[in-house]
Amino acid sequence: MAALPLDGIAVVLFRPKYAENVGSVARACANMGCGQILLVDPWQFDPERALPLATHHARHLIEGIRIHATLAEALAPFAFSYATTARLGGWRKAVHTPREAAPHIVAQRAHGPVALVFGPEDRGLTNAEIEICSALVTIPTSAELTSLNLAQAVLILLYECFLAAQERPLRLSRYPKDRAINHEEQGILFTTLRDTLMEIDYIKPDNPDYFMLSIKRFVHRLAPRRHEFDQIMGLCRQVRRLARLARGQGD
Amino acid sequence: MAALPLDGIAVVLFRPKYAENVGSVARACANMGCGQILLVDPWQFDPERALPLATHHARHLIEGIRIHATLAEALAPFAFSYATTARLGGWRKAVHTPREAAPHIVAQRAHGPVALVFGPEDRGLTNAEIEICSALVTIPTSAELTSLNLAQAVLILLYECFLAAQERPLRLSRYPKDRAINHEEQGILFTTLRDTLMEIDYIKPDNPDYFMLSIKRFVHRLAPRRHEFDQIMGLCRQVRRLARLARGQGD
Repeated sequence: MAALPLDGIAVVLFRPKYAENVGSVARACANMGCGQILLVDPWQFDPERALPLATHHARHLIEGIRIHATLAEALAPFAFSYATTARLGGWRKAVHTPREAAPHIVAQRAHGPVALVFGPEDRGLTNAEIEICSALVTIPTSAELTSLNLAQAVLILLYECFLAAQERPLRLSRYPKDRAINHEEQGILFTTLRDTLMEIDYIKPDNPDYFMLSIKRFVHRLAPRRHEFDQIMGLCRQVRRLARLARGQGD
Repeated sequence: MAALPLDGIAVVLFRPKYAENVGSVARACANMGCGQILLVDPWQFDPERALPLATHHARHLIEGIRIHATLAEALAPFAFSYATTARLGGWRKAVHTPREAAPHIVAQRAHGPVALVFGPEDRGLTNAEIEICSALVTIPTSAELTSLNLAQAVLILLYECFLAAQERPLRLSRYPKDRAINHEEQGILFTTLRDTLMEIDYIKPDNPDYFMLSIKRFVHRLAPRRHEFDQIMGLCRQVRRLARLARGQGD
């Protein structure tokens, strides 16, 4: 299959309600050269209802859709993930517009696959889903109305990526070991860091997640490579071994 | 009514086939702050079929739609008009992307209203319609598929205008006489220029339109103001009077 402008970038729809909207999203993907759609826990997804909106140009995208039970499961193989939202109330994670994010998105895919995550039509992504993702994007709209429909939001973000990709086509890294770790490895890293920091009494066991939030954001910004992941994991193992040794001798 | 980000810019749909698409276009207009939609010779337009897609946010836009019989009639009050097209085969008029055109569109509206013209869903605008417009815009898409649907094309062009308008909000010219002439006046100008140039034997009467094509494009690029229009019209009158006098004496 020929290279697509947005190879290495996937659209992830979290709990889409209407198959027709998935069809419109597929058409937007085909128009902008994005070749992969994932659904997470969709509501009664019927490909037959999606196909008319997808048109024959995007039929292969509907047929290639993969369905996952949870967002964490869907994102496991992705190195980077962008949550999209219209609501910004109280959210402190750095928020970018599609125009700001697009050059980063197309550059990052050289180090690992990138997921663009969109919430359900009626209420968007909640903080729980946004927290799983590496970054946050919001699409600017007129003040009188802030809700784009699902396919419109997908189209605008992909359109910005498509233009950015023309400046910076995908060239896979020549060093496969240099790939960024994916969400599954990131999860292992967070758990290991949290347990290690608790074991050396650096963070208290009563509310470790609050502290870990800033570690999490730091790691997302850092985007560790696989060999760095191996080093940090080895370091944690060594620290925990010493902590246990010290506890056995000192306590 | 409060100012909208895209005041002074209207969306003109030429022969739309499906009222549902007009509804989706209205929603895109509402999202990007464009307050005016015109239809030209639509196919069986039923507002009731447009409203569900427009959602309540864009109901006022559907209710405010004006319908015209011809494109020339619809564009008469507009000073500038942008034809949109996916097909570029053989067309020699300068073509811009939405990103290139948007800063011009939002700047031009200070001198007169701007129309963004979109063709029918199935075949787009023909050369005859494009020729009426002042400029041409094409939306870049992935090579494998070049047809955006109608509402997607409207959304992307308005989105670019919306971002450009944030940099350059509308400030109406302080000199009302300084307004750019509209399409109706442009038509009068072309006819007068053609007749004058024929009367002084500068262009041959067998095929004046071929020659006038380049005059037309020149005038579109120049965007004459109303007082310049008055001057050129006065000049033409004087030249024709002299030509008739010369003919009466010399022939």
